[in-house]
Amino acid sequence: MISKEDAGYILDERRCKLGLSWRDLARRLDRPPVWTAAAALGMHPIPEGEAEELRGALNLEDEIVDALVRQPTRSPSRDLSDDPTIYRFHELVQVYGPALKSLIHDEFGDGIMSAINCSITLERAAHPDGDRVVMTIDGKFLPYAWASSGEVGQEKTAAR
Amino acid sequence: MISKEDAGYILDERRCKLGLSWRDLARRLDRPPVWTAAAALGMHPIPEGEAEELRGALNLEDEIVDALVRQPTRSPSRDLSDDPTIYRFHELVQVYGPALKSLIHDEFGDGIMSAINCSITLERAAHPDGDRVVMTIDGKFLPYAWASSGEVGQEKTAAR
Amino acid sequence: MISKEDAGYILDERRCKLGLSWRDLARRLDRPPVWTAAAALGMHPIPEGEAEELRGALNLEDEIVDALVRQPTRSPSRDLSDDPTIYRFHELVQVYGPALKSLIHDEFGDGIMSAINCSITLERAAHPDGDRVVMTIDGKFLPYAWASSGEVGQEKTAAR
Amino acid sequence: MISKEDAGYILDERRCKLGLSWRDLARRLDRPPVWTAAAALGMHPIPEGEAEELRGALNLEDEIVDALVRQPTRSPSRDLSDDPTIYRFHELVQVYGPALKSLIHDEFGDGIMSAINCSITLERAAHPDGDRVVMTIDGKFLPYAWASSGEVGQEKTAAR
Amino acid sequence: MISKEDAGYILDERRCKLGLSWRDLARRLDRPPVWTAAAALGMHPIPEGEAEELRGALNLEDEIVDALVRQPTRSPSRDLSDDPTIYRFHELVQVYGPALKSLIHDEFGDGIMSAINCSITLERAAHPDGDRVVMTIDGKFLPYAWASSGEVGQEKTAAR
Amino acid sequence: MISKEDAGYILDERRCKLGLSWRDLARRLDRPPVWTAAAALGMHPIPEGEAEELRGALNLEDEIVDALVRQPTRSPSRDLSDDPTIYRFHELVQVYGPALKSLIHDEFGDGIMSAINCSITLERAAHPDGDRVVMTIDGKFLPYAWASSGEVGQEKTAAR
Amino acid sequence: MISKEDAGYILDERRCKLGLSWRDLARRLDRPPVWTAAAALGMHPIPEGEAEELRGALNLEDEIVDALVRQPTRSPSRDLSDDPTIYRFHELVQVYGPALKSLIHDEFGDGIMSAINCSITLERAAHPDGDRVVMTIDGKFLPYAWASSGEVGQEKTAAR
Amino acid sequence: MISKEDAGYILDERRCKLGLSWRDLARRLDRPPVWTAAAALGMHPIPEGEAEELRGALNLEDEIVDALVRQPTRSPSRDLSDDPTIYRFHELVQVYGPALKSLIHDEFGDGIMSAINCSITLERAAHPDGDRVVMTIDGKFLPYAWASSGEVGQEKTAAR
Amino acid sequence: MISKEDAGYILDERRCKLGLSWRDLARRLDRPPVWTAAAALGMHPIPEGEAEELRGALNLEDEIVDALVRQPTRSPSRDLSDDPTIYRFHELVQVYGPALKSLIHDEFGDGIMSAINCSITLERAAHPDGDRVVMTIDGKFLPYAWASSGEVGQEKTAAR
Amino acid sequence: MISKEDAGYILDERRCKLGLSWRDLARRLDRPPVWTAAAALGMHPIPEGEAEELRGALNLEDEIVDALVRQPTRSPSRDLSDDPTIYRFHELVQVYGPALKSLIHDEFGDGIMSAINCSITLERAAHPDGDRVVMTIDGKFLPYAWASSGEVGQEKTAAR
Repeated sequence: MISKEDAGYILDERRCKLGLSWRDLARRLDRPPVWTAAAALGMHPIPEGEAEELRGALNLEDEIVDALVRQPTRSPSRDLSDDPTIYRFHELVQVYGPALKSLIHDEFGDGIMSAINCSITLERAAHPDGDRVVMTIDGKFLPYAWASSGEVGQEKTAAR
Repeated sequence: MISKEDAGYILDERRCKLGLSWRDLARRLDRPPVWTAAAALGMHPIPEGEAEELRGALNLEDEIVDALVRQPTRSPSRDLSDDPTIYRFHELVQVYGPALKSLIHDEFGDGIMSAINCSITLERAAHPDGDRVVMTIDGKFLPYAWASSGEVGQEKTAAR
Repeated sequence: MISKEDAGYILDERRCKLGLSWRDLARRLDRPPVWTAAAALGMHPIPEGEAEELRGALNLEDEIVDALVRQPTRSPSRDLSDDPTIYRFHELVQVYGPALKSLIHDEFGDGIMSAINCSITLERAAHPDGDRVVMTIDGKFLPYAWASSGEVGQEKTAAR
Repeated sequence: MISKEDAGYILDERRCKLGLSWRDLARRLDRPPVWTAAAALGMHPIPEGEAEELRGALNLEDEIVDALVRQPTRSPSRDLSDDPTIYRFHELVQVYGPALKSLIHDEFGDGIMSAINCSITLERAAHPDGDRVVMTIDGKFLPYAWASSGEVGQEKTAAR
Repeated sequence: MISKEDAGYILDERRCKLGLSWRDLARRLDRPPVWTAAAALGMHPIPEGEAEELRGALNLEDEIVDALVRQPTRSPSRDLSDDPTIYRFHELVQVYGPALKSLIHDEFGDGIMSAINCSITLERAAHPDGDRVVMTIDGKFLPYAWASSGEVGQEKTAAR
Repeated sequence: MISKEDAGYILDERRCKLGLSWRDLARRLDRPPVWTAAAALGMHPIPEGEAEELRGALNLEDEIVDALVRQPTRSPSRDLSDDPTIYRFHELVQVYGPALKSLIHDEFGDGIMSAINCSITLERAAHPDGDRVVMTIDGKFLPYAWASSGEVGQEKTAAR
Repeated sequence: MISKEDAGYILDERRCKLGLSWRDLARRLDRPPVWTAAAALGMHPIPEGEAEELRGALNLEDEIVDALVRQPTRSPSRDLSDDPTIYRFHELVQVYGPALKSLIHDEFGDGIMSAINCSITLERAAHPDGDRVVMTIDGKFLPYAWASSGEVGQEKTAAR
Repeated sequence: MISKEDAGYILDERRCKLGLSWRDLARRLDRPPVWTAAAALGMHPIPEGEAEELRGALNLEDEIVDALVRQPTRSPSRDLSDDPTIYRFHELVQVYGPALKSLIHDEFGDGIMSAINCSITLERAAHPDGDRVVMTIDGKFLPYAWASSGEVGQEKTAAR
Repeated sequence: MISKEDAGYILDERRCKLGLSWRDLARRLDRPPVWTAAAALGMHPIPEGEAEELRGALNLEDEIVDALVRQPTRSPSRDLSDDPTIYRFHELVQVYGPALKSLIHDEFGDGIMSAINCSITLERAAHPDGDRVVMTIDGKFLPYAWASSGEVGQEKTAAR
Repeated sequence: MISKEDAGYILDERRCKLGLSWRDLARRLDRPPVWTAAAALGMHPIPEGEAEELRGALNLEDEIVDALVRQPTRSPSRDLSDDPTIYRFHELVQVYGPALKSLIHDEFGDGIMSAINCSITLERAAHPDGDRVVMTIDGKFLPYAWASSGEVGQEKTAAR
């Protein structure tokens, strides 16, 4: 029984050998590119239809398709946070996290930007000093709310 | 000699008591809001002109203005990464980091999105299911390049 | 400028000396007991009205009331997770976490129980073998959803 | 000799392929669903009768049944605490742990809620703003007691 | 407001200067020596009567007596586990822990020795090769039990 | 070449299938039960005679017997300290360690209880409120001594 | 599918057995020695031409050549930072890092030396007291700049 | 109440200002130099006579003398293990630890070199290539022994 | 008694206010700039002459001069390794460390580059694509050598 | 391709089965015993002549001999520092490290004892109270020196 992570490594190798970009696969699945790459690398369960589409595009074995469909544990067995390309994102959160938190509280009140009801795009933007990566993270604001199933419509938020 | 971090806490308390939002301060400084909040909380050195502007707006003491101007060590003495509002950003990097890395390599080649030549905006977007936080991160792509000061124009990139 | 954590320690000492239970204070604030204790110990911002109520009940100084009202960073400076009473909760998550995750996916699909839109009650229940602590955690289910502010009503969930 | 953890992964894959929910299996075993999922995933020893029932339901091999019956070490070889669905529970303990501890001491005296003599239920509750996960944790209160086998009936509790 | 830990340091210094052993204090409190030392060093709340007794014996200030009476967080701010005298106990658990666990399951079934309903004695025993420390740990066995407040007398243990 | 740890897992499985308790094996080896379990699980080298006895009792393969005899590295490859049954012992050391240390210094002077010249027993004691685990740890006191091979009889202890 | 790390170990063994130095291989690839060693050990993707050259020089199998060409995750699965030869570099950064940071800010303003647009040479220099390792690190200075793709030519640097 | 660590810092500063070496102090105390330095820096309790001697030599205040006499917790509040001079010792244990362990078992049987009954000398030795530090560590061998206070003369060692 | 670290912070603030660069100070001390900055920030003991020079240049108080002269513990109380300017150096060691190690062994044999007998320069180099930081690290090669004070001229190196 | 660590485990097992001590092997190699054990366990490269000698003495396979000859990464994949026999050495460094550092600075000036140019002996010394392990560590003193390949004979040491 192959893990979703190992299935992702194999799928990715297959994809590179075939010269297919993530956008190519995303178009084939009619899904956004970031979702497609994340799901194929093991971070989302892939619906059976899309999994079959990937099988066709990349000539995947049964056990890999099974792994793609499986519900993930989103807890990577190998911590990749010090890969330089990934580390820069964590560094941005270290440097700007307190400012973003304070701005969110300023404009929305006490709460968070959801990492579950959230989408991400990544685009290339031309610039005379060198092209730029433009990422947009678009997540639902969730206010701290002391709600319960038994007291519909009566919650009193914790906010100011 | 007060640290930039402590100066930031005091400035922030002052700001809240005066009912000033970060956007109010940003407008006064003619700077972007995320930059303004990050710099005021200790993550950037603030040019003297802007520091004086903040002194005026928030009635700051000399040692706080000194701290704002000082070059920061961007290494927070208290790790805030488990604050729920900040944690969600780290979780997004954990879940989507490998996909973003792979997309960057796909579209730009081997390299990183700079966390130094980079700007961030944060906006509120209305949505029928609840308003959304929309963050845009816009960083220069930096290709891995084996350059040196002695061999101008001859570097051979490491990429495919 | 006193931190919310230190303000909480002082408030708690005052409360014990006056012989007031958290339920006494909760009643006075017309808030649930778990929310009241959490907020007073520094984990939620307390609206000004309730803060004034606490000032009256516990004879609090201005800087403590200021701290109660302030937006918290919910990132404790001292990790208390090995206090035996708190550790048992973490142990329960260690032992039952994978089962709870699997049951949630089974019954709700891919997603999480919100820790933000969530309430907790704690009651004492009599039992012939010794009284029992009965805690109810009641949190909104949040499905993984690839939504964005620009594409209302079109998101396609990632789920099976 | 297969570990209980690996046996749990295989059992779970088998269960999903057969379209059986944990509640289906729990009914078949006449056991509560949370207990059933936790035990099948390796966190409790499963009595032989129930293990045979699972063998029948899921067509399990001998070595998997052996693993189910075996006494567990409840110390997962892979730390899953950063999976988002599981992390939310730890975050709740981080945010509300000190309040719950203080309430327990308030109402029961010095002691803990047992994580050993404890049961958990998880139910779905309808709510107009979105269905909710309702978990009940029901654990015996254990007072700190300086008891010993040699001095029956004489212990003097440490409490106030 | 002095912490229980700091109060313990001061109390201990006072005790040593007065040449009082823990057994002397224990006798005065009519409590066991290990309990007395642990409580005085901040690990248990001390009932008011005993706290007054300690005030008398050691000439303690009010704020120290207040700290002694206070409910502890049993989560030391300084980790002392590498002090050689304390480390040897952790080493014993590292070396013999799996054996003790297996023996407990062998003789009592699935469960734990309680660290809450537990007493400890420490005695000096003469021996021709050098005197010995003899510690007895006497804790209640707690079987894993899936009990709840609503189903008295029906629980079904998880054990073999 | 099988490790002592893996040999211990297999031996233990064999033992359980044969319905043999550790006390049964201990009697057969004429060794104390805690020593027997610890040694069989890989924490002590087992003399050849006893290893042969175990081979006979449990029908062990040659490479397992070889592993039993081998000198151990007492550094478990898997940290089991968060297994609840084992964790309780570490918690006891966390809570009572400073008190035990202080009592040892009080009664013996500066030094430690040896974890090398040390024996442990574990017994079941009946009690009306539930049976108890009674562990006795009996270790030689070692005073801090500044001795050397060249200066026999002249050392001056560091103690008070 | 062999990892880049394992491919590097095998390549290195092959290289040593053939008595080839890194400089020999670097000359054959017409690449700098540090780049060549880093890339061959798995830290850079190797262009196909150079990979074929290595295949020829070291008689490499197909799956090793595939691994050399593959885009790396630069996050070593084994942390080698305590190998004495590597540790000395980390120690230098520990001891001199704050000074180097301060000098960079002094002479270039707020920013960093790029670890991406960077080359390294390592040479042997004779010295009467013993030969010396002379490493030159030559990286582009990157000033903190709040640039974005939408506002060409308008950025205002954060610097003093 | 000053800690032993802080007392040690002050004592050391006083010593340097007076131009006294550790050997000077050791001679005055008639104690070995390593013991003298370790005790003065807070790692051993200093007998009152020697403490008075140090008071005289270094003009120490009462609270510093009190701290010197006090029983230490040998658990430094600041981990100095990455100071280069100290780190080299840890590196030696990392590199040679397994060899030393194996030699000890070879020549003494199963057991340890005591870190409690142990003395250390440090001398300067001339050498044409540069003077050398010569440290001798002389510790009692302690065999693993399953002894107890109740069974004098009957223990059976665990060894081969 | 001020620590060397705190003395360094104050000295640095004084230096910036006076508009003095590290090179200015280095010239005044007739020392290299990297050494000057490192020593002034607390990483080297500063000879009295140079310390007096700094007192004059920066108008330092006595206790700061005392701290500059004091022997350092080179173990920073605050870990700054995640400051972006410093982190890039650690990242270079992570990415290129194994290659540098292998090249050193290739060209010098088994051993290390000394971090003790070592100097560092940092220069600005013009480049059409942006100026560059050029650092040179020049450390003595130390071969692994099994030497001792008693056997002059007989050591046999461990190398190939 | 077997690792040096695994090769060491097999070699050691072979050695024990043949009843050969490390001193026996050391004599055969004409090398010191500590060097021999360390090298055979994977911490030094073994010259080919000595490796052949070991092959003969222990009947080693080719891939084990290859591993013995290979340059090591001295970064153990398994951290053995909590094995009791090894831990005692780390504890000695924890307890005596600051004193040894201070004595070295006292007698040699600012610098370290080399862990590279260093030899270790371990002997058994008889003693009426029990035999003793006598270890001598003999390492070259390295003064902090700001030397470089370009400025022979001009370095100015940092020391007092």
